[in-house]
Amino acid sequence: MSKTIYVLNGPNLNLLGKRQPEIYGLETLADVEARMAKKAQELGLEIEFFQSNYEGAIVEKIHEAREKAAGIIINPAAYTHTSVAILDALNTFEHPVIEVHISNIHTREAFRHHSFVSGRAEGIVAGFGTLGYLVALEYFAG
Amino acid sequence: MSKTIYVLNGPNLNLLGKRQPEIYGLETLADVEARMAKKAQELGLEIEFFQSNYEGAIVEKIHEAREKAAGIIINPAAYTHTSVAILDALNTFEHPVIEVHISNIHTREAFRHHSFVSGRAEGIVAGFGTLGYLVALEYFAG
Amino acid sequence: MSKTIYVLNGPNLNLLGKRQPEIYGLETLADVEARMAKKAQELGLEIEFFQSNYEGAIVEKIHEAREKAAGIIINPAAYTHTSVAILDALNTFEHPVIEVHISNIHTREAFRHHSFVSGRAEGIVAGFGTLGYLVALEYFAG
Amino acid sequence: MSKTIYVLNGPNLNLLGKRQPEIYGLETLADVEARMAKKAQELGLEIEFFQSNYEGAIVEKIHEAREKAAGIIINPAAYTHTSVAILDALNTFEHPVIEVHISNIHTREAFRHHSFVSGRAEGIVAGFGTLGYLVALEYFAG
Amino acid sequence: MSKTIYVLNGPNLNLLGKRQPEIYGLETLADVEARMAKKAQELGLEIEFFQSNYEGAIVEKIHEAREKAAGIIINPAAYTHTSVAILDALNTFEHPVIEVHISNIHTREAFRHHSFVSGRAEGIVAGFGTLGYLVALEYFAG
Amino acid sequence: MSKTIYVLNGPNLNLLGKRQPEIYGLETLADVEARMAKKAQELGLEIEFFQSNYEGAIVEKIHEAREKAAGIIINPAAYTHTSVAILDALNTFEHPVIEVHISNIHTREAFRHHSFVSGRAEGIVAGFGTLGYLVALEYFAG
Amino acid sequence: MSKTIYVLNGPNLNLLGKRQPEIYGLETLADVEARMAKKAQELGLEIEFFQSNYEGAIVEKIHEAREKAAGIIINPAAYTHTSVAILDALNTFEHPVIEVHISNIHTREAFRHHSFVSGRAEGIVAGFGTLGYLVALEYFAG
Amino acid sequence: MSKTIYVLNGPNLNLLGKRQPEIYGLETLADVEARMAKKAQELGLEIEFFQSNYEGAIVEKIHEAREKAAGIIINPAAYTHTSVAILDALNTFEHPVIEVHISNIHTREAFRHHSFVSGRAEGIVAGFGTLGYLVALEYFAG
Amino acid sequence: MSKTIYVLNGPNLNLLGKRQPEIYGLETLADVEARMAKKAQELGLEIEFFQSNYEGAIVEKIHEAREKAAGIIINPAAYTHTSVAILDALNTFEHPVIEVHISNIHTREAFRHHSFVSGRAEGIVAGFGTLGYLVALEYFAG
Amino acid sequence: MSKTIYVLNGPNLNLLGKRQPEIYGLETLADVEARMAKKAQELGLEIEFFQSNYEGAIVEKIHEAREKAAGIIINPAAYTHTSVAILDALNTFEHPVIEVHISNIHTREAFRHHSFVSGRAEGIVAGFGTLGYLVALEYFAG
Amino acid sequence: MSKTIYVLNGPNLNLLGKRQPEIYGLETLADVEARMAKKAQELGLEIEFFQSNYEGAIVEKIHEAREKAAGIIINPAAYTHTSVAILDALNTFEHPVIEVHISNIHTREAFRHHSFVSGRAEGIVAGFGTLGYLVALEYFAG
Amino acid sequence: MSKTIYVLNGPNLNLLGKRQPEIYGLETLADVEARMAKKAQELGLEIEFFQSNYEGAIVEKIHEAREKAAGIIINPAAYTHTSVAILDALNTFEHPVIEVHISNIHTREAFRHHSFVSGRAEGIVAGFGTLGYLVALEYFAG
Repeated sequence: MSKTIYVLNGPNLNLLGKRQPEIYGLETLADVEARMAKKAQELGLEIEFFQSNYEGAIVEKIHEAREKAAGIIINPAAYTHTSVAILDALNTFEHPVIEVHISNIHTREAFRHHSFVSGRAEGIVAGFGTLGYLVALEYFAG
Repeated sequence: MSKTIYVLNGPNLNLLGKRQPEIYGLETLADVEARMAKKAQELGLEIEFFQSNYEGAIVEKIHEAREKAAGIIINPAAYTHTSVAILDALNTFEHPVIEVHISNIHTREAFRHHSFVSGRAEGIVAGFGTLGYLVALEYFAG
Repeated sequence: MSKTIYVLNGPNLNLLGKRQPEIYGLETLADVEARMAKKAQELGLEIEFFQSNYEGAIVEKIHEAREKAAGIIINPAAYTHTSVAILDALNTFEHPVIEVHISNIHTREAFRHHSFVSGRAEGIVAGFGTLGYLVALEYFAG
Repeated sequence: MSKTIYVLNGPNLNLLGKRQPEIYGLETLADVEARMAKKAQELGLEIEFFQSNYEGAIVEKIHEAREKAAGIIINPAAYTHTSVAILDALNTFEHPVIEVHISNIHTREAFRHHSFVSGRAEGIVAGFGTLGYLVALEYFAG
Repeated sequence: MSKTIYVLNGPNLNLLGKRQPEIYGLETLADVEARMAKKAQELGLEIEFFQSNYEGAIVEKIHEAREKAAGIIINPAAYTHTSVAILDALNTFEHPVIEVHISNIHTREAFRHHSFVSGRAEGIVAGFGTLGYLVALEYFAG
Repeated sequence: MSKTIYVLNGPNLNLLGKRQPEIYGLETLADVEARMAKKAQELGLEIEFFQSNYEGAIVEKIHEAREKAAGIIINPAAYTHTSVAILDALNTFEHPVIEVHISNIHTREAFRHHSFVSGRAEGIVAGFGTLGYLVALEYFAG
Repeated sequence: MSKTIYVLNGPNLNLLGKRQPEIYGLETLADVEARMAKKAQELGLEIEFFQSNYEGAIVEKIHEAREKAAGIIINPAAYTHTSVAILDALNTFEHPVIEVHISNIHTREAFRHHSFVSGRAEGIVAGFGTLGYLVALEYFAG
Repeated sequence: MSKTIYVLNGPNLNLLGKRQPEIYGLETLADVEARMAKKAQELGLEIEFFQSNYEGAIVEKIHEAREKAAGIIINPAAYTHTSVAILDALNTFEHPVIEVHISNIHTREAFRHHSFVSGRAEGIVAGFGTLGYLVALEYFAG
Repeated sequence: MSKTIYVLNGPNLNLLGKRQPEIYGLETLADVEARMAKKAQELGLEIEFFQSNYEGAIVEKIHEAREKAAGIIINPAAYTHTSVAILDALNTFEHPVIEVHISNIHTREAFRHHSFVSGRAEGIVAGFGTLGYLVALEYFAG
Repeated sequence: MSKTIYVLNGPNLNLLGKRQPEIYGLETLADVEARMAKKAQELGLEIEFFQSNYEGAIVEKIHEAREKAAGIIINPAAYTHTSVAILDALNTFEHPVIEVHISNIHTREAFRHHSFVSGRAEGIVAGFGTLGYLVALEYFAG
Repeated sequence: MSKTIYVLNGPNLNLLGKRQPEIYGLETLADVEARMAKKAQELGLEIEFFQSNYEGAIVEKIHEAREKAAGIIINPAAYTHTSVAILDALNTFEHPVIEVHISNIHTREAFRHHSFVSGRAEGIVAGFGTLGYLVALEYFAG
Repeated sequence: MSKTIYVLNGPNLNLLGKRQPEIYGLETLADVEARMAKKAQELGLEIEFFQSNYEGAIVEKIHEAREKAAGIIINPAAYTHTSVAILDALNTFEHPVIEVHISNIHTREAFRHHSFVSGRAEGIVAGFGTLGYLVALEYFAG
């Protein structure tokens, strides 16, 4: 039976492709999800997509993942830098976590250089644009 | 056609006028909104009011403002000091942002001296009490 | 007439007893609430239980407590370290606040050593496991 | 009898309108003072203007204000960040102080983010351009 | 056979009830010890009391506890913040340690926010007044 | 004509697969290079491999890359954290740079959390084990 | 022939006795100078008094002292914390310097705890009120 | 009836006049006490001298002073920089405290620049050599 | 027509050659100016000399330079480390600025290692003694 | 005549061999002293042993050493990190001081990485277990 | 007999004139050396040129200079900020050292503001472009 | 069969005995090696000596030691404070490492107080002069 991977996107990512294209590109979140769905099928993986602007909603989706998912790919966006709650939720999850950032957060403001999630994640991909989400899937392919 | 200004208030401001009057005064949020509505009319501006205790809800209201507003007046209250998500949402907004604080945050605890929003705002008003909201409207009058 | 105490639990505590038992033990939140209810009865206290993963929801429950409660026992969990909004809400509450942590936060990661709530609380109990909640009730017994 | 407000401008502001127009605009200090004088008249306020590049001269003008002024509007410019002497002088003044910055100092170099005056001021206006001076007058109007 | 608990109090606590009652209350150390003795009897515990103003004497009392005690309740007072020697002594002790502070040290000066002992203790009680000592006894009751 | 990618490995990576397998796995550097060569062929890329324990040698290899390479994949190992010289060399290179770390450096010692290279790189992959090198190649495939 | 001592007072001290009596007392600067003159006569010392709100003027008075004075008693007031120029001037002076503060600067704001002058002074007197000036004279009596 | 002043000297001061004369001079502690006794008589003050190398002993002497002394002159020597216990003891004392240092501690190592006692003391004298003890007596003369 | 260079010297430099010759040498400011005048003539440059101990006076001289000078050579002395006002004035000047220090400020106290001016200057010369002023002239020769 | 070396051990070292053998080994302090005595005899040195848990007692033993010892070997244990008093006492001692730590303090908690004594000592030995004491003796052998 | 000056250039400077001309200009290292050779001849100095990307090679060239050179002109480039080894080598050299930077390092990234060499150098020239090397020669001319 | 110990010396140590004798003494590196060889013979140990000014060469010698040595004695000299690469190489070595410093690095500049190697070493000897190398051998003797 195929593994299910949860793909979680944090605040403001619902605007992907609609704002600051010089940083985030022109693809929308729906475009990205379509490409991921296609690649997941090739790799024999199930995917569940979720985006929320609410920290609490992301925490609860991670709780749900505890029962249903074999891995989490998360782009916590702004909550990367401020949310201990998401870190704690991820700490209750027993399978691998891959952290994705579309841009290279190390070339932006100083407060974006620290991630609460990085200390918990098995892997990190940053600066590959939306390709990073596809790369993250490969972690679960082997 | 008149411009629309979004007036956003953050957590605990629904209690305005009902708590700590030595800091925040006796006017309620409804009182302030009534005065703003009157002044906006004089200046030929439309206003949309919104208050929430949820970070995610404020983020989503700012997303809505992207289509509908020519400016934002925001008192992020406690989220001033902790929310990168609100900053990111404001970064997707292309018109001016004015940050308002009822009290002078620099005369309070040290953790209230830093604002994530100030680096994004075009203007800041602090310590004018609720008059600050009216003053902020003038920015959009010219 | 008996006093009502609000018992508020923050993010991820709905998983109590279901995750990391080496830190948090095997008791579920329902178990803890049952023991508290029993002890409250002995002490002549009413209890209102509430758990949420949303910062905004906890803020609003504290607003409700302003009218209805004679005390708050709060385990803000991850929000201990990041939420000024909860601190501000507690600052509008006029009765005692007791902060509870199941584990000793000082023996964990450095970012868990600072609590926004401790500066507001009348008392703190940490490291007593779930017994800490019962101990907190005694504060309101005298 | 009408109240007198002292309007104090610090170093380099004599060049207003003659340097870096992308930051400070094209209006000269004389232009600003003319607009303030007009608005003060409408509000029934007297104004005394003063600009100096000398820290000591500003200190002494504040001493003079102790006898003659009901309020001070001050843009300490570079001395905002380095002068304890001006802060001490303002501490001897018993009426309200409003701090004005033409640009938003929080979007400039880090050493401009701290103000010795902000901890003493009743109100702060920043980033409104020269409109900030007029807005400051409103504080004294009520 | 009943367990023996050592109750150690650090410098200046011999003055309890005789100084700064707004912080420490009116009960003397003898009063507290009497209440503890009574409660210990109810819980079937033996107690040994000790107070000293000498860091070295507290170290040696902890050495003695290694042979005789099943637990230590310690209020290191000022040594909380400066004594590595007491921490080292506690590290040689194999049973639980509960740290008690009468006041909430987090609402006092910054140098009182760090405790060398908290990283070693099984539990912490602060801000319960002298009730904290009784609460600490409950840890050993179960 | 196909693009050439330089793959540079820093100090101690010649020992890959021969030391600390719990961190770095069992594959040797030769194994990794073989897998990369195969994938590069599929993607139509040329590869040049280089490993050195000398900071100066890596600097000079980057100089060579200026004439010959369309991209650099670099795992600077220990020099990640200490070498401004490698950063400067990379700054003279006009094509994309991808930084690879086999382990997640954010879960190791604090001095490994800062990278001089991250602020220059277009993309970063960490914690994917040796798979990270293959993933890095995909950046240049499109 | 008697020695001459320069007594230099920094910004805002011309207001001594006229502001914040809870900190600085009720004596004016003239009162203090009269008492010092009397005591100097008893000790066989000449005194030259000087007060200025200008950093530059104090620097130049110290230059003058190089030719004429056998010692300097200085209360640099606000310039204590910000003036390297006064320190440099004092470094050109070859005789003893005594630093006086009327209040205990260590019980005030943190930025008043550091003095550029203390590292140059032979002696320091703080918190003795205006008596500190007389005490400073004794240094030169022996 | 005359007031009694406690004169407390901390660790290593029993060696005064016997070590490092370039810093501390040639007078012994007995010499200093003799001069103080003489001056106290002139001023109508009683004096109690005490020196100890034990932090605990100094704490207990301060406790004794609570009943018997109208003021404390203390040179805490090395404990200046490390003892919160002495600070706490002084906080229980209701009369003035004058802190004395023979040398100017600000011209020595950085760790000697901070004093726990200075925030509690009414006055400070440093760098006057042993004359500082006599000067301190004058504080109590008026 | 020849270019005019303003040569500005800050506080205490009027004492050049008269104090601390081991640091500053034996040449007076007049001697230096004479040598500069001679060299300027050779290079076809006009020179205007100015020295002041007043921060405000230096600011105003820079304002004057805006109309008259093609370059500024400045040794801000102590104001190097404390004056934002001079930096702001230099920011209004559109031609090159060369910063000169007679001694190597990096071998002196730590607070002399930071210069507000260095971030604005085109060039810096330090530690060449008074020769540095002549070297600075060469910058304008080309 | 043979030289006398004082061997001083700080707090908790009386428990050597009786606690935490994984850090400190199984040898008791008596065992170590016996081995040292034997080696000292071979080297023609006299030894005086002393252990105390009291900071004051160690200070006074160092005072005694001023008259009697040609060198000090000291393991200040916990006081390494907190005692300025011991440093001051050692500063009055005119012969060499060798600092010994049984374990490598740099592999333990961060607060154990700083030693007040290291800046005074001629030599340091750490991490050699109890062999370090014997090695220290060799310093005095030559 | 003429003096020999060693001119040492650090990593990446072999690319001078071939990279980032907006920072470093268009002159190559060979061009600079030719101009220096010409000027040295005029001044009666011998020159030895050396460039390396290896820290160790620069260290060894400095060792060679100990026997052969009367001065060193060094542009350590990236090693300015990271090499204690070069500093140590320079500390073994007994003649003057002049530090040269082509650009003004103070207007670049923060980690380029600190130089290990500046504390050892007799003189510093920065921001004069390649002219700085010629200026450095003048130091040795007198 | 006897054990082999690698003795590695870092940059500038080839100059031992030829520079700064007040710090490093008059013995050359060859002298030290001769004494070590003799003592090793007595202890039944083989020794391999190596000195390099290149960080990379030391890394590679440590790699060689993985196959051939039962212990490493290393004086990393300047690389003590800057080399993560040497630390990483030592982390691949499975036998004990003893760190030697000829002088006491804690009595020199602040940047010499931190050692990357100390956290990896089993033992540390500093300040024993060249005797420290011999003392280090004893660690391997037992």
